[in-house]
Formats: sequence, C-alpha cells, structure tokens
Amino acid sequence: MNPFYLHKIAIVGVGLIGGSFALALKRAGVVATVAGWDADGDNLCLAHQLQVIDERSTSLKGAVSGAELVMLAVPVGKMADVAIEVLPYMDQGAVLTDSGSVKQCILEAVEPLAQAAGVNFVAGHPISGTERSGASAAFAELYQGKRCILTPSEQTDAAALRKVEQAWQSAGCEVVTMDVLKHDRILAAISHLPHMIAYSLVNSVSSYDRYEENILDYSAGGFRDFTRIASSDPVMWRDIALNNRQSLLEMIDQFGRFLSELKKDIEQEDGERLYEFFLRSKLSRDAILHPSVRDK
Amino acid sequence: MNPFYLHKIAIVGVGLIGGSFALALKRAGVVATVAGWDADGDNLCLAHQLQVIDERSTSLKGAVSGAELVMLAVPVGKMADVAIEVLPYMDQGAVLTDSGSVKQCILEAVEPLAQAAGVNFVAGHPISGTERSGASAAFAELYQGKRCILTPSEQTDAAALRKVEQAWQSAGCEVVTMDVLKHDRILAAISHLPHMIAYSLVNSVSSYDRYEENILDYSAGGFRDFTRIASSDPVMWRDIALNNRQSLLEMIDQFGRFLSELKKDIEQEDGERLYEFFLRSKLSRDAILHPSVRDK
Repeated sequence: MNPFYLHKIAIVGVGLIGGSFALALKRAGVVATVAGWDADGDNLCLAHQLQVIDERSTSLKGAVSGAELVMLAVPVGKMADVAIEVLPYMDQGAVLTDSGSVKQCILEAVEPLAQAAGVNFVAGHPISGTERSGASAAFAELYQGKRCILTPSEQTDAAALRKVEQAWQSAGCEVVTMDVLKHDRILAAISHLPHMIAYSLVNSVSSYDRYEENILDYSAGGFRDFTRIASSDPVMWRDIALNNRQSLLEMIDQFGRFLSELKKDIEQEDGERLYEFFLRSKLSRDAILHPSVRDK
Repeated sequence: MNPFYLHKIAIVGVGLIGGSFALALKRAGVVATVAGWDADGDNLCLAHQLQVIDERSTSLKGAVSGAELVMLAVPVGKMADVAIEVLPYMDQGAVLTDSGSVKQCILEAVEPLAQAAGVNFVAGHPISGTERSGASAAFAELYQGKRCILTPSEQTDAAALRKVEQAWQSAGCEVVTMDVLKHDRILAAISHLPHMIAYSLVNSVSSYDRYEENILDYSAGGFRDFTRIASSDPVMWRDIALNNRQSLLEMIDQFGRFLSELKKDIEQEDGERLYEFFLRSKLSRDAILHPSVRDK
C-alpha cells in the first residue's frame, strides 16, 4: 500500500508537462480526481476527452478549490500572473507547485504571495520534454527515469516539500533538491546556452551574404540535426532568456572564452592544441553516454 | 544503354566514403573492376570479403595502374601525401579525384603534381556521410539524392571533369560545380563552424567549476543530441580546422557577432528584439525542412 494519496489535484495549464503529470499520477494510482484548467478552451476540452483530466473547469476557482495540490504548468513568463489569479481560490494549507524551467524568478515572485494566502509553495522543474505541445502530446511515461529538481527555500514547508517530492516520485522521477541559483546556473549551461547558440548559428549562417544564394540551402542532415532546437518557440525562449538573465550571461561568457581559445589555436595553426581541445571535448561528451552510478 | 562506362577504377582508402562510392558505381553497372588499397590491411581484407572492392592490392602501384579513375578517400590531412605516392603509378591521361571536405588546400597541392605527372585532377566533395567509418560501414545508397560539389580550376580538363561528374551522378548524386573558395566558405558555415561550436560548448560546460560535481551529469537528451558532433574524430577535425583556416575564422567571427548581438539584447532585457532574433532563426531553420525547388 502506498501511504501517499491525494484526493484532488488541479492542473493549471494542461499541456505536455501538466497533462503528463496528471496521467502519470493517475496511472500510479495516487490520485482520486484530477481537475484541469487551461487558457485555451479547445485544449481543455481535448484534455477532458482524452481523459488526461477527470474534471474540466472553465474557472480557475472551480479547478483549484478543494485541491490538496495545484500544479502550475504554464509558460515561465506567465507563472507569476497565473499564481496571483490562483492563490485566492486555494484552500488554506494546500500545496502550490510549478514546473517552470527557470526557478529563482518564480520562487521570488510566488513565495511571498503564497505565504500571504496561507498556501505552501514548492518550486520544481522536471528535466524532461519533447518537441510537441498541448494535451494531445501528454503521455504517462514522460517522466519515467527522468530527474525532477526541487528548489526549496528556507521558508518552504517540509511537509509540502515531501508531498511534491512523493508526487514526482510517483510519476517516475528521481527527485533532486538543490539551491535555486544552482538550478538556474545548471539549466543555463545544459539547456539555455545551447538554445542561444543554435539560434545564433542559424542567424549567422542565413545572414552570410558573400553569395547571392542562401547558403543554408546547402545544409545536409548534420546541420539540420544540430540546429533542431532553433525551431523552438520564440516566445518561450524570450521568457527564459529574460528570466534567467544573470546565469545565462555568465554561461555565454564562459562559452565565449572557450570559442576564443579555439579561434586563437586556429589562427596560430597550433595542431597540437587543436587536437587536445577536440579530444578533451570528445572524452567529456562520450562520458555523458556512460553516466556514473549517481545517474542511474 | 548508359554510354558512361569505366573498365577499372581504384579506391585509395576503402572506408565509408570510398567504399560507398565503389558499391554505388557497381550497383549502377558503370564499372567493370574496382581495385582497392587501404593503409589498414585488416580493413582492406574486410572490404574485399564484403565485395566492396573486386581486387585488393597490397601496393598502391597494383591498385592504380590501368585504372581510368582513381578516387582518393583518405583524411584531408593525408590527401596530398597520398597523391604524391599514387601519381607516379597512374596511367597517362587517367583521372584522379578526391572526396576531401576542404578543397582549396587539396587543389593547390595536388593539381600541379598531377599536371607534372600527366594526370587529370578533379577536386570533389560529396555532402554525405554517417558517424560510422570503415569498409563495413559502406553502403551503395549513401549518396542517393545527396549533393556532390566539384571545384574545377581553369586548368581542369573538361573531359575529366565530365567523367567525374558522370561517376557521381551514377552514384545517385546531384552534381554542383562551384568556385573552390566558395565551397570552402559554405562548408565552413554549414559543417566546420557547427563542429567548432559543439566542441567549445562541451568544453565550456564541463569546465564550469562553481560546483564540485560535473554539471554535464545533469544533461538530458536535448544536450546529448545537440553535442553529438563533439564526439567526432579529433584528428579529422584538427586537419579540417588547419586546412580551412581562413574561411573557418571568417565564420567564427560572423557567428561571434550574432552571439554578441543576442548577449546585448539579454543584457538590456529587450524582449522585443529577443523575440525577433529567435523568430528569425526559427523561420530560417524551419525553411531548411521545406527546401526550394532548386534542392529537389
């Protein structure tokens, strides 16, 4: 018997992330009723038809009242505004959590509001996703074997933290707790920086104007694979860039130093240093494919 | 009836590129005998066992003598040295071509040597490949629907150029002829620059030392996909970086300007410009997936 059980949860934003969270908890048998709300009425209807949620609510109040746990799964740039709308309708002592990929700005904005409303806020971020979006993209296995990072503050209620941890564990995640700034720096490095690079690469190549034709037309499979993430949603990435500014700028500078080092080695035709640079990178990258025990 | 027919060709370096060229011409029925040579004796035996080549020769002389067309498919850094070894044994008036991914340095090194030896050199580069290597990786369909770029000079013999063009067309390629510097610039943009970026990204993230742990351990599927090309062979990329130095440096600077522009927009929290930057990139990148008629 799993002692962890929730009578009602509410998903605010029933897309890939929120919808998959609902499906995973239902499959784990740890929730009786999932209520859902979405800014897009059609998507909300679809989520209900596909049984991603059990109850669809046209008002935030109806969705979150009586819920022990409310999951905010809306874009990073909307998280604080939606929290402001949701909090007045939540039960005293209920738990509010989120899934945003930047955490410090959300924690700073939402935590004081939650405390004032008598609600326990726990900031979280599942390291998972696909390129698809919307309720129809949700599936119960999305989080299986993936990591979820929780970033509690000194004010975070221990019981609420435990509840959110158990929810993500029930969804299949390994849950890691860390300092909120560390989360934002790590995500800046492994996710936000690569997106900035991919966007910049595509713009730099498509703007190359020595020839009349667009040289992107010559790109083969390798370039297409490498720049796949440059096809990501511009609004989402504008919000992430704005909300993780300091950590992202730090990582852009870190990357710039290494690219400058490489450039200097090419200028100086230093074959030995070039070989070492490429080999070091290859070894680090190959090691990701054979993760340590900690990653299992 | 195809009027294009070769009685003997020789493949010098029977790996993925050279081996697939042999298999494609054999399947097209445009060659009677394929002789092969490889610096790696085991790989040469394998190529023969797998019928990638018809004759295996332990000497370059045996492989290339009597061949109407000799394909050099060795690493870029070895191309000129191998040409020097091969040319004395080639028939007068025979055609020498190569598959190197940098063309100006090879053209400048090999063309005068070939002219002195009475051999017609045509520089070429098929835009195709996989991550695998060696004769066992070769397959006849590798070039199907791909582009092959030929970079003739003013000295290039027209009949030899036509012969190499027909060979690549028989292998399934669309053959494009262009100025050698243009080739090297385009490849710097769509292939060499992305590799430099991927290597620099992995090194910059793995060297991030604010925390005791290696933050690469947190990387998920997206980062692994994006940095796949950083697992490429360091020797091959050292040679490419050294041999396409000018064009590559130009592209690194071009990329650096765009990354700096993006950095400035993040610093200034200019959401509108960030959105435009990401949208422009996304539209360019999405357009690659729907190529123009020219690409068909």
